[in-house]
Amino acid sequence: MTPIFERIRKSFNQQSFMQTLGAELVAVKDGTVTIELPFSEFLCQQQGFLHAGVVATLADNVCGYAALTQTPDHADVVTAEFKINFVRPAIGERLVAVGKVETVGKRLCVCRGEVSAISQGNSKVVAIVQATVAVV
Amino acid sequence: MTPIFERIRKSFNQQSFMQTLGAELVAVKDGTVTIELPFSEFLCQQQGFLHAGVVATLADNVCGYAALTQTPDHADVVTAEFKINFVRPAIGERLVAVGKVETVGKRLCVCRGEVSAISQGNSKVVAIVQATVAVV
Amino acid sequence: MTPIFERIRKSFNQQSFMQTLGAELVAVKDGTVTIELPFSEFLCQQQGFLHAGVVATLADNVCGYAALTQTPDHADVVTAEFKINFVRPAIGERLVAVGKVETVGKRLCVCRGEVSAISQGNSKVVAIVQATVAVV
Amino acid sequence: MTPIFERIRKSFNQQSFMQTLGAELVAVKDGTVTIELPFSEFLCQQQGFLHAGVVATLADNVCGYAALTQTPDHADVVTAEFKINFVRPAIGERLVAVGKVETVGKRLCVCRGEVSAISQGNSKVVAIVQATVAVV
Repeated sequence: MTPIFERIRKSFNQQSFMQTLGAELVAVKDGTVTIELPFSEFLCQQQGFLHAGVVATLADNVCGYAALTQTPDHADVVTAEFKINFVRPAIGERLVAVGKVETVGKRLCVCRGEVSAISQGNSKVVAIVQATVAVV
Repeated sequence: MTPIFERIRKSFNQQSFMQTLGAELVAVKDGTVTIELPFSEFLCQQQGFLHAGVVATLADNVCGYAALTQTPDHADVVTAEFKINFVRPAIGERLVAVGKVETVGKRLCVCRGEVSAISQGNSKVVAIVQATVAVV
Repeated sequence: MTPIFERIRKSFNQQSFMQTLGAELVAVKDGTVTIELPFSEFLCQQQGFLHAGVVATLADNVCGYAALTQTPDHADVVTAEFKINFVRPAIGERLVAVGKVETVGKRLCVCRGEVSAISQGNSKVVAIVQATVAVV
Repeated sequence: MTPIFERIRKSFNQQSFMQTLGAELVAVKDGTVTIELPFSEFLCQQQGFLHAGVVATLADNVCGYAALTQTPDHADVVTAEFKINFVRPAIGERLVAVGKVETVGKRLCVCRGEVSAISQGNSKVVAIVQATVAVV
């Protein structure tokens, strides 16, 4: 495990909400972070699909951590804002969220990501995000 | 309780994620919906503040339900996308999210909302949202 | 004319694109800026309505200048990002764009705005914007 | 020239604002549209860079037309909303805007795009956009 993976894993494990959701940090590379979440009947909206808020939470986290892979060791990051499109119902055995850094500035990074639902081996994009992450 | 409040309460109660979060539907008026959430140590990010994903979930829900107050009885709504700015850490005893319809179209409504943190009787805006809700 | 109005007018007059569009700075108050634009057949999209890009330009400018009313004298501002919903065709004799500061931070301000079309004395909102303005 | 290129060129040529800006439609492929714009001193903000509104206009247009490449012949498209991050000043001899369709729905398409500035042969991304385009 690389030092940045260690650093992000430590931060991830300190997020009690990630444990409440049952989310798992599965990959950290330069500029890219992946988080997965198994379906749970406790995380649904009124039709039994995974809630948009769950999808947005994963999208936010992968973007923030993707930015963290590109910032100096002593810096921390915070999501200034994000915009997310929901393009399909979040149905399936699990969600996979991937965030990537697009541009790195001294004070702001722009990241993009997708959240996909895995159902019987098929992956479909359910949400698309663009985020502004502040370096603090 | 008005018919639209009844309808939204029923939908809200069917969202298992709202119960997982401990969120409460507190007010439904024409074009405005309010949801509250008491602080919980199970909903935090790495510094112990309420997670941005929790804030975004409330923001999404109040915007969607605000749109629902303005749609025909047989119609349903789904969030097409939202954009949210996080302007302060979500610290406090509870969050209050308020969503309002700005414009109603045949197919799309635009809603705006705020999420505020209540701490020792003081309310501070922690997030500002603008959402596009599709009528389906 | 207040000092901040003077400062913004000077900046506005240096924007050659504002003159190309024929836009006019009409009001500057604490936290609120208004710009108007008369209809011109040179600023249209394919159906003869004012182009979404013209509407977005006004929205961007009123948000940026609204933020400038709340920043220290020596600071300047730059739009980090904005999100804009187009809710009606931009038809009419003129557009009126109003931007307001929602929250002021040390480094980022969040602003909201509307662009309305005035047609035969009636005003209708054609676009709704939420912007993040960086203080530099 | 393909039929869809023809259709988009015709629409583009009917946009008087594109001619006012001096923008050129340079490529149309399945799901991707490219527009270029030479620098002009009439399109600037107060520091002499190309105005954010010009950048946003190109971003909006390439996303809308990219969506049009994926819609039925009889359908038309309109931008419901977009979100754009400005990541560098728009300085250079010309701007190149590229829009791509990400997902196609019956009623809404999500598109992403970049606007780059070309300066002495170097290309740098100056803006990143995510748009929701309605099929009408």
